[in-house]
Amino acid sequence: MGKHLTSREQDYSKWYNELVVKADLAQNSGVRGSMVIKPYGFAIWESIQADLDRRFKETGHMNAYFPLFIPKSYFSKEASHVDGFAKECAVVTHYRLMDDPNGGGVVVDPSAKLEEELIVRPTSETIIWDTYKDWIQSYRDLPILVNQWANVVRWEMRTRLFLRTAEFLWQEGHTAHATKKEAIDEAETMLDVYATFVEEVMAIPVLRGLKSEGERFAGALETYCIEALMQDGKALQAGTSHFLGQNFAKAFDVKFQTKEGTQEYVWATSWGVSTRLMGALIMTHSDDNGLVLPPKLAPYQVVIVPIYKGEQQLEAISKVAEDLMEQLRSKGVSVKFDNRDTHKPGWKFNQYELQGVPIRIAIGPKDLEKGSVEVARRDNLTKQFMKQEEVSSAVPLLLDEIQVSLFNKALEFRAENSKTADTWEEFEALMKGNPGFVYAHWDGTTSTENKIKERTKATIRCIPLDGVKEEGKCIFTGNPSSQRVVFAKAY
Amino acid sequence: MGKHLTSREQDYSKWYNELVVKADLAQNSGVRGSMVIKPYGFAIWESIQADLDRRFKETGHMNAYFPLFIPKSYFSKEASHVDGFAKECAVVTHYRLMDDPNGGGVVVDPSAKLEEELIVRPTSETIIWDTYKDWIQSYRDLPILVNQWANVVRWEMRTRLFLRTAEFLWQEGHTAHATKKEAIDEAETMLDVYATFVEEVMAIPVLRGLKSEGERFAGALETYCIEALMQDGKALQAGTSHFLGQNFAKAFDVKFQTKEGTQEYVWATSWGVSTRLMGALIMTHSDDNGLVLPPKLAPYQVVIVPIYKGEQQLEAISKVAEDLMEQLRSKGVSVKFDNRDTHKPGWKFNQYELQGVPIRIAIGPKDLEKGSVEVARRDNLTKQFMKQEEVSSAVPLLLDEIQVSLFNKALEFRAENSKTADTWEEFEALMKGNPGFVYAHWDGTTSTENKIKERTKATIRCIPLDGVKEEGKCIFTGNPSSQRVVFAKAY
Repeated sequence: MGKHLTSREQDYSKWYNELVVKADLAQNSGVRGSMVIKPYGFAIWESIQADLDRRFKETGHMNAYFPLFIPKSYFSKEASHVDGFAKECAVVTHYRLMDDPNGGGVVVDPSAKLEEELIVRPTSETIIWDTYKDWIQSYRDLPILVNQWANVVRWEMRTRLFLRTAEFLWQEGHTAHATKKEAIDEAETMLDVYATFVEEVMAIPVLRGLKSEGERFAGALETYCIEALMQDGKALQAGTSHFLGQNFAKAFDVKFQTKEGTQEYVWATSWGVSTRLMGALIMTHSDDNGLVLPPKLAPYQVVIVPIYKGEQQLEAISKVAEDLMEQLRSKGVSVKFDNRDTHKPGWKFNQYELQGVPIRIAIGPKDLEKGSVEVARRDNLTKQFMKQEEVSSAVPLLLDEIQVSLFNKALEFRAENSKTADTWEEFEALMKGNPGFVYAHWDGTTSTENKIKERTKATIRCIPLDGVKEEGKCIFTGNPSSQRVVFAKAY
Repeated sequence: MGKHLTSREQDYSKWYNELVVKADLAQNSGVRGSMVIKPYGFAIWESIQADLDRRFKETGHMNAYFPLFIPKSYFSKEASHVDGFAKECAVVTHYRLMDDPNGGGVVVDPSAKLEEELIVRPTSETIIWDTYKDWIQSYRDLPILVNQWANVVRWEMRTRLFLRTAEFLWQEGHTAHATKKEAIDEAETMLDVYATFVEEVMAIPVLRGLKSEGERFAGALETYCIEALMQDGKALQAGTSHFLGQNFAKAFDVKFQTKEGTQEYVWATSWGVSTRLMGALIMTHSDDNGLVLPPKLAPYQVVIVPIYKGEQQLEAISKVAEDLMEQLRSKGVSVKFDNRDTHKPGWKFNQYELQGVPIRIAIGPKDLEKGSVEVARRDNLTKQFMKQEEVSSAVPLLLDEIQVSLFNKALEFRAENSKTADTWEEFEALMKGNPGFVYAHWDGTTSTENKIKERTKATIRCIPLDGVKEEGKCIFTGNPSSQRVVFAKAY
């Protein structure tokens, strides 16, 4: 296994695809548009899941599970939702195969046609609100704070591993509230949970903002989002949290009796992040040698590689390695000791570099003599020798340092790639490339937004929540604007 | 919310359905045959998942994720597999909907027909072995020890919550090995993992055995299983582990280079348990008052209910409750303090009894005076008063006692409902009811097995792994037999 990745400068997109496959994260499957998430890649996703799930539970949510299939008619109940979601989707029309009467395999049994087609869920608002109707009668039944970890399918013509696949994994929170304020608070709380997680655990800085009307979720009154900037100057939406108002409650007739005895429609939110986060992780930190992982998400944070000739040396090195492992594990560090005799140390070095293991410890015969080990950092590729007795105190600190350093590096990159544009000429010139985040004034209309997109391919990533209020003129129409919004080319 | 369940004696099946719904475990959805797993039920499933997942990892397995959709042609590659699985299934034929040209909703776009239909996975051997072909070249790539947590779909005409639903949740392990022996060892190891988990955590005693040829998994050379006995005298298959030989390796042409340089087909296993385990849990321990949960799986092991009039009493009780909670939590006990003022204590008592919370602690004004609390066990419905300072040491022991007691009670029930039959008359008479496990001699042929099934509806649950070797005559044909097998009516 050689690393031999295409360099990022040469072809960023090719680099990405090669890295995903060679680092054992994922691969295309025999099913068009569907990926296989390989064990190493899935272990990272499991870390993401475990940490998010804990945060969801700490904020009062419970998990549940709703059906994969949604009757076609459900989608028609919320008018804007059907346009946004039900069109490009997988449709189940039959429930049986039969032996081909002409021989050779199996064919669809024409007599087993469903009366109503079933859609493989692209998102679950409709089936969930159809269920909530049963759960909610009174204010006593509220709030409902439920999350679901699930697979969803949106038929995509052009797919890319993790970034855009027909089937992907995600979580979708669906909550029901007695008041508008409580629902808005929930949508904002969950945006905060996402932002904190992505920044603190994934080491990816994000902008928090609102989507423009044109970019809003189909059926939402307001979409909150977090936006990250990739190394190639393109933006990636890392998570969304929607205030749905009473749209779904009205579509599915979900009312509750208030404390005062009146009947009211329920207020709703939904919020989700997906395996797309894996794409954001890769494109924020990795380099031409392969994946770079923040220690908080690494399946193992430290790998120990023995360099030896013969059984006797291996035995002596193993003793040191096992001792170090025990010490590090007692400090909560996850360690792998790779003593396989089927692969050479050089192969292993390459492999762990490609897979982004944050710290590599090598132990050779000279280290035995000197009581030292070689400690290599994956993020900046530096090496140092360390006394064996220092490892258990130094490595946890080093892992913290790597975590912080990755975040700061990404933050710096974002600062360097955040620009302002005050005129259309400036804006258009910037958008000939992938300039990063461009802060510019916009007149607030979807028609202007669409025209800007047509001409430059740039979209409004968000209206920043912490944006400075300043008077300005729309770069395109010259109409008045009270705040800059963030434009970018996006994944 | 009243409990008012139909009694088990009156109608076991009705009791089961009512319990599942009223204890907030699951409910039917608007999609025929698909269930909604409600938050409380899902929390139990999460406990099952977490414990099993830890055991899988401790035995060297990693999780991965494979596509939901499988091209139809894949199923035809393993001859017996297609007959066993690909017939009753959900078939995706189209990938787009369009606005109905006649107005009113959406219809399938006839131009978006797939060239090859996709089957929603009923089990994943085919797509996984199609992938393993890429992963395996050399003995260095073996073994592959992979598990997947996933949803699967098998079209069922008659469905029951948890026991038989069109969509269900499960895990499926799929492993690849260099030798036959290693694969058989793996299949046996995983049966052992299942049996230990089901007995120690779910408190359900199981028989370990082999399936007869007629009951084997489609594509397996040998199917190992664990079988449990439900309260109504019917058996339930709680988990299976299959030795697949080289069948799938041959079907998908997966070969490896041995150490000696020869090319050989890879050996395989697969193994799975599903949300059916929830059905086994319910039907082993629960009673006419509702669910009974083993402490090791209970979402909360202890619930504290305050009995009070007015704010002042509640405050004083809350102080005691919070103190107890802290003490219990420090001992690893999960506790919920239900201080909602929207529901009365009697309602709460009912609710937690219905939901099977192992221990209920009630604290009233008299307890404040006496420094006591009332501790009620869900399993045997006994109550005792306890000094507040004894709670933190007594409750963990009580939870252990409940766990053991539930297992022993189930074991005793199974002993009472395990019988032998030496003649056809005896056997037929027993099988007029649901007699539990019936140990009888069988001549080893599928044709006899089928005839017995036709006449009595009894199936061979397993050939017990620890069965005594004894000479005997088949109850049906009189032909010689060397070991009794276990017959039962089954879910």
